[in-house]
Amino acid sequence: MMKVIELHASATASNDLDAAALREELKDRGILLINLMSSPGSGKTTLLSRLIRDFQGKLRIAVLEADIASKVDAETIASLGAVSQQVHTDGMCHMDAGMTEEGLRHMDLDGIDVVFLENVGNLICPAEFDTGAHKNLMLLSIPEGDDKPLKYPLMFQKSDALALTKTDALPYFPFDIEKATERAKHLNPDVSIFPVSAKTGDGMRDLEDWILESLRELRHA
Amino acid sequence: MMKVIELHASATASNDLDAAALREELKDRGILLINLMSSPGSGKTTLLSRLIRDFQGKLRIAVLEADIASKVDAETIASLGAVSQQVHTDGMCHMDAGMTEEGLRHMDLDGIDVVFLENVGNLICPAEFDTGAHKNLMLLSIPEGDDKPLKYPLMFQKSDALALTKTDALPYFPFDIEKATERAKHLNPDVSIFPVSAKTGDGMRDLEDWILESLRELRHA
Repeated sequence: MMKVIELHASATASNDLDAAALREELKDRGILLINLMSSPGSGKTTLLSRLIRDFQGKLRIAVLEADIASKVDAETIASLGAVSQQVHTDGMCHMDAGMTEEGLRHMDLDGIDVVFLENVGNLICPAEFDTGAHKNLMLLSIPEGDDKPLKYPLMFQKSDALALTKTDALPYFPFDIEKATERAKHLNPDVSIFPVSAKTGDGMRDLEDWILESLRELRHA
Repeated sequence: MMKVIELHASATASNDLDAAALREELKDRGILLINLMSSPGSGKTTLLSRLIRDFQGKLRIAVLEADIASKVDAETIASLGAVSQQVHTDGMCHMDAGMTEEGLRHMDLDGIDVVFLENVGNLICPAEFDTGAHKNLMLLSIPEGDDKPLKYPLMFQKSDALALTKTDALPYFPFDIEKATERAKHLNPDVSIFPVSAKTGDGMRDLEDWILESLRELRHA
């Protein structure tokens, strides 16, 4: 029986200080924290499921699932044999650093290499709060359209990497990868962009290399 | 040159009172206000474009476009010859009644039958605020997945109708219409559900009948 942790807004005055402290603590333990952000239904859980399978025996992954309601995502992750914890955000559309820290406190992270925080599905609020993650990975799915950087600029600016997901659906939707790339790079010249299909595996290797490189960077900095 | 109105949170104490007043005022003018809510990229603007074309010569439509940034949606609507106004929400992920009223004040609604408020793309915050609309129409697109009622229950509860959009993509995504219908009806037994494709026109007639019936209801109540 999967237990759900009910979170509330953090009481501390400075989210940025909390975030810096959590980032440092995890770094000391050699654990990379990646904050996953996207619209609802962009394929966060499907991408994570693929990563868990692809990294089997190579990388120990844990997932903190944040939602308003339900525990379906944490159950999906747990069924793959990975450590997972569901938290509810008390109706809030984001996670802050204190909430992330509290969620992680309920997880056994001994021997874990990478923790993914699957943030609430939302292109606005999550971008406004530093969660304490070492990297922000944003997902934009092909069916959503290549105009999203124009409408939700902050999240593109805050992301270290952008995965363009569901590329297997490219034949059916008018999504221009070049245009999306140009718009994202205009907002954030340093963002790494990975067109991927978790379904076919297309492009996954490059994204996985970025994750491995981020972990190496963390442990040798 | 399309002008953008920059809105700020309403100063009045009671959003519910503002909403009731706006709803009544529009009713007196015989104008139906429909609040469109969905995730980013669910096809709100594409659906509106189809409705404007289908209702050409039959119904005079205006669109109030709410976004964090850009004016691409209002320009798309204007290019179809419909009255449209873009508003920005000062970073907020919802519209309230005061903001809606202010946006509408900038539009020439003489002779208009139906105004659509295209709310900010978000499955959480918009559901928490009464905009003064007579009807709430939610969109859930096939690529997003049939689990969304489990994760974002409030918006399904607040909606009078639910359009399941992009049904032309059903062959490519594991979306179970029956399961989605059952989950939505479990949260909201009275919700009307319309599977539609704005691309092929499939199912549009039933949704259009619901709009016409809502207008008749408003004018004869």
